[in-house]
Amino acid sequence: MLVGRLTLVSAPRRQLPTYLTSLLYCVKRKLYSERTMSSVNKTAHAFDKTRFDALLNRRFFYAPAFEIYGGVAGLYDYGPPGSSLQANIIAEWRRHFIVEESMYELDTTIMTPAPVFEASGHVARFADWMVKDTGNGEVLRADHLVKNVLEARLEGDREARGQATQVVAAADDKKKKRNEVKSTAVKLEDAVIAEYDSILAQLDNYTGPELGGLMRTHAITNPASGNPVGEPQQFNLMFASSIGPTGQHPGFLRPETAQGHFLNFNRLLEFNNGRVPFASAQVGRSFRNEISPRAGLLRVREFNMAEIEHFVDPLDKSHPRFSEVADVELVLLDKYVQAAGQSTTRIMTVGAAVKEGVIANETLGYFVARIYAFLLKIGIDGKRLRFRQHMANEMAHYAADCWDAEIQNSVGGWTECVGCADRSAYDLSVHTAKTGIPLVVRQALKEPIVEEKAVAEWDKKSMGKTYKSEAGLVSAAVTALDEAGLMKLKDELAKGPTTIKAEGKEFTIEPGMLTIERKTFKTSVREFTPNVIEPSFGIGRILYCLLEHSFWSREQDVERGVLSLPAVVAPTKVLIVPLSARAEFDPLVKEVSLRLRKAGIHARVDDSTATIGKRYSRNDELGTPFGVTLDFASVQNRTMTLRERDTTDQRIGSIDDVIGTVIDLVQGSIEWAEACQRLPAYDGVQAVE
Amino acid sequence: MLVGRLTLVSAPRRQLPTYLTSLLYCVKRKLYSERTMSSVNKTAHAFDKTRFDALLNRRFFYAPAFEIYGGVAGLYDYGPPGSSLQANIIAEWRRHFIVEESMYELDTTIMTPAPVFEASGHVARFADWMVKDTGNGEVLRADHLVKNVLEARLEGDREARGQATQVVAAADDKKKKRNEVKSTAVKLEDAVIAEYDSILAQLDNYTGPELGGLMRTHAITNPASGNPVGEPQQFNLMFASSIGPTGQHPGFLRPETAQGHFLNFNRLLEFNNGRVPFASAQVGRSFRNEISPRAGLLRVREFNMAEIEHFVDPLDKSHPRFSEVADVELVLLDKYVQAAGQSTTRIMTVGAAVKEGVIANETLGYFVARIYAFLLKIGIDGKRLRFRQHMANEMAHYAADCWDAEIQNSVGGWTECVGCADRSAYDLSVHTAKTGIPLVVRQALKEPIVEEKAVAEWDKKSMGKTYKSEAGLVSAAVTALDEAGLMKLKDELAKGPTTIKAEGKEFTIEPGMLTIERKTFKTSVREFTPNVIEPSFGIGRILYCLLEHSFWSREQDVERGVLSLPAVVAPTKVLIVPLSARAEFDPLVKEVSLRLRKAGIHARVDDSTATIGKRYSRNDELGTPFGVTLDFASVQNRTMTLRERDTTDQRIGSIDDVIGTVIDLVQGSIEWAEACQRLPAYDGVQAVE
Repeated sequence: MLVGRLTLVSAPRRQLPTYLTSLLYCVKRKLYSERTMSSVNKTAHAFDKTRFDALLNRRFFYAPAFEIYGGVAGLYDYGPPGSSLQANIIAEWRRHFIVEESMYELDTTIMTPAPVFEASGHVARFADWMVKDTGNGEVLRADHLVKNVLEARLEGDREARGQATQVVAAADDKKKKRNEVKSTAVKLEDAVIAEYDSILAQLDNYTGPELGGLMRTHAITNPASGNPVGEPQQFNLMFASSIGPTGQHPGFLRPETAQGHFLNFNRLLEFNNGRVPFASAQVGRSFRNEISPRAGLLRVREFNMAEIEHFVDPLDKSHPRFSEVADVELVLLDKYVQAAGQSTTRIMTVGAAVKEGVIANETLGYFVARIYAFLLKIGIDGKRLRFRQHMANEMAHYAADCWDAEIQNSVGGWTECVGCADRSAYDLSVHTAKTGIPLVVRQALKEPIVEEKAVAEWDKKSMGKTYKSEAGLVSAAVTALDEAGLMKLKDELAKGPTTIKAEGKEFTIEPGMLTIERKTFKTSVREFTPNVIEPSFGIGRILYCLLEHSFWSREQDVERGVLSLPAVVAPTKVLIVPLSARAEFDPLVKEVSLRLRKAGIHARVDDSTATIGKRYSRNDELGTPFGVTLDFASVQNRTMTLRERDTTDQRIGSIDDVIGTVIDLVQGSIEWAEACQRLPAYDGVQAVE
Repeated sequence: MLVGRLTLVSAPRRQLPTYLTSLLYCVKRKLYSERTMSSVNKTAHAFDKTRFDALLNRRFFYAPAFEIYGGVAGLYDYGPPGSSLQANIIAEWRRHFIVEESMYELDTTIMTPAPVFEASGHVARFADWMVKDTGNGEVLRADHLVKNVLEARLEGDREARGQATQVVAAADDKKKKRNEVKSTAVKLEDAVIAEYDSILAQLDNYTGPELGGLMRTHAITNPASGNPVGEPQQFNLMFASSIGPTGQHPGFLRPETAQGHFLNFNRLLEFNNGRVPFASAQVGRSFRNEISPRAGLLRVREFNMAEIEHFVDPLDKSHPRFSEVADVELVLLDKYVQAAGQSTTRIMTVGAAVKEGVIANETLGYFVARIYAFLLKIGIDGKRLRFRQHMANEMAHYAADCWDAEIQNSVGGWTECVGCADRSAYDLSVHTAKTGIPLVVRQALKEPIVEEKAVAEWDKKSMGKTYKSEAGLVSAAVTALDEAGLMKLKDELAKGPTTIKAEGKEFTIEPGMLTIERKTFKTSVREFTPNVIEPSFGIGRILYCLLEHSFWSREQDVERGVLSLPAVVAPTKVLIVPLSARAEFDPLVKEVSLRLRKAGIHARVDDSTATIGKRYSRNDELGTPFGVTLDFASVQNRTMTLRERDTTDQRIGSIDDVIGTVIDLVQGSIEWAEACQRLPAYDGVQAVE
């Protein structure tokens, strides 16, 4: 399960040291496409959250659901470009994971009867701690309250010391709007700063009562009202409902897709001819009734997840393809560093991390590296991505190890977007315990195991006569003996009557009543409950971070926003722009559209009356990587121009050559530099933007 | 909304007359691929539901959800082949509708606050009628009870007359298992048969009290217990929940995706530059808390829908592409025929149906024809598909016209799988009424409308003095007058004081108090609420019917089941079979896999130790249309054989030629006959199955 905690950490204190990020950058540059062209300055303007939000809203990437009814916190609708972007991320996820590793895809139900979540532990434990304002009854999430108040005090301290940064100032507006905590310039003692930093670094590690303690110790009240808050109470995050017309069958909406995999384990195992390892995968909607969600797409009550359950032999967690990823370097933040109240990351290869026991095993390491490759491929900035290990209290008690892919963004700081956990045999075991149905692998042993064991056999008749209603008690006492105990009893019986204790009472055993013999047993089948490695992706969080990482404004005009989405996920790959709406362009527009569609490339025609520059600008906002223009030369000479979004560079060629080139570009078989070698630069009139 | 009623009609009484089906078949054969090869007898064995179910279950197409917990009626999980089949149906739906018509895709939330469904009418009316067994409290759906009991009586009559057919006998087993009504051989009067037939034909037309009346008149009791049942009560089919921690915000799981489109209308309209027509589309999960679902995938509590909302000008429901479909012939069952208690279909072109007013307008007709083409393309048998018009009581009061695509199958008879309704301006209007936010189109008129209207103007001061608290009453009475009334009043006032009646009382108006003049008004903007044409697809029902229509058994061996799924939806397109697991085959297997994957074709390798015949058989059950075999000749001469699933015909060629041919086959650019011209027949040893 994706645990779903947002680690809202103030950006300035937590950024990687510059030397580390630049090192990482150099090491990684060959692994992901370097999209920043030398001629383009994407950082000429600081990231502007207001402009960014305005673009997403205006172009309907997504919007608050039920907006005309006043909206509901934590529920969002995706409009046309957002839906496409999401669908493309999911399609790439399927290629990268399901197709590449021949996983078994599932589509299981969301509505789930209560007994399933009683067994899984969700009914008892899938909860957050909330506090109530003692004055107005407002409900707040306990850990968020602590975090927001302490961060505001630290921010106030920086202000008092004259250290407040531009980034922080920009964030203030946002906080005001979201009704968060406004800082006041008050200087703090150095020791207090250190204590607050330490609390924030291990915030995910506190229990509810501990959070209550922190609130008392540090005089934390509801900042909106100034009222004190009550003791933290647990609130279960599952949406409850009732199945059928009688009201007698309580159900919950799943908070993760994982249980659907576990419950179908036996069918999946059979599908894989009874052998592990194999993996199931599922993309689908999940629901969490968040206490008071206020972080946009980062904390929502309904969201798409993509989850993998990779079932392995607990005695062999090696992975056959581990060598392919062993040299991949990752930025890691391990549990020991965090427990010490620090947040210093280190760079390690996956191979070294597994070898040194930082990551628990090969299969877990393999998936961490695959997650990393996936996120880079869809356009996440490698400099703003790290893997954080769960701390002891944070991790489920049964889990062997867990790493979150955290992506840095302006709303949530370093935000968990993917979880990757070794959940041991927990899930299959609890469902077996509840249902009595074995969820195990039976493995034929190449060499049968032969062993001798002492076996006790009673003379049932005389036993019943002697012990009567206590016969079961005596029998159980003998059964409980180990090998040595049984052999000792055998020796005693050889000498005459002896005694055994059961529930504090002593029973006499006559020789003749009990025979103990060593017998030979042969086992040719090994039975075991597989362990589960679970990579779990929050699609909406990844999508939001990707949008932030892709956004910038043109150097010459801050109003001209661009989303530099990679072609693989861009909602539209090619914009087709006829110079005018004249009928003579129609056949060419149709031809180009059809040829791109046949190549499986999603193109859109913009035949509005706006200038070509304006039409390109509008599509820069939608992240469309390429544009082709049909003008009078196209009609006369069958030439066409090709424009690249980030550089606004334009090339010209025959319609055939341009289509061939743009197909290669979209499919990723060439880079823009190669396209420039194929097609000469264009300096015609409409190139001026 | 897909209304979701299942018309369970006994097959023998309702089948199309043979001459009609064969006529239809001849007419339509060019429209869909004729998959039955002359050398293959797909009907050598009668359809066997038990074998069919066993195949779907064994190969994990789908299975009851929470099976190890005893299952929950109406909830199913899709396994690997079922998930792929579903994903492929949805992908084709996107190509056929969204891409082809440039629709705007949305992804909106499932959890919905109560006010939305209060406005839409779902809270008050989205309900089924249920009855309670007066003895044991069992809850039954009222219309299903009437239907099951009357059908059993008709069946008993047929048995008594010696007319019971094989199909019916096979269905009996199923009924027993599903605890449905077992028939008893009792002969009925001819008049009673006619009455039962008439009731069954218009079952969807009855209100709850009417169903109660039928139960009394025809002495219908709970067949399981023999107990009488109570009066029909309404049961709302929406799953209820609560949003947020306070319990003060009731919510429902959406029973359709449609409201998400309507609530975003203004954003979509802006996305389309303020103009209609345009269409939004959404594929997603919906939920209905069915009373006692027992019809497999045909009646479930959670399901995937694909819905289109096409917004049009109410004054112009023409469609620019109507001419492309005007000649398509459809099997229609109109409302007049059904209201007369009949079920005789007729064949009409869409063009004629719209012209003669059978289908209400061009846009509705266009979508009916497009739905038809889609269903044939994915493999639905055109002979088992008809379009049934909703009857007066069945249709929502606001709807202008509604047609269901019904697909015949062994479980539900003719089953609604797609609904296509003209919902007028209802949906947008109710949300405007509830929220006060206009959901309208403002259209600039080319020619402003200029009109003269009489306008009444009071001398406010003397009016107040004269009428005092009744001034509003008098003013309203004048405002209510039409043009002629105002002009008459003007004439009267020109002669002196006159009177007007308001709420039964007469008021005197003095000349001077009221001036009436004709004035000129100019309107340059027309404002209107668009109408909505809504095609709504139940993906699971279509998937189930497709599986039934695709299933048959080999003539020589009834145990060898085949699913003749078209390549476009088949879970796997190509099976790659190496003759043995020897290492020398590995490079070839890799090469073929990679080349197919690069062409975007989903292939699977079966390198198990089973015989080649057995491996092909197993994949016939999964619907894999093509298989390629790598043997020792492949290693030596780079040849490969190609097998077609339905005919089991095998051809041979170079690896390059076979790959080229199989790519063309899967992409639908050639048929098997053409592949046979390219590649010679193969008669090698492993061809023998």
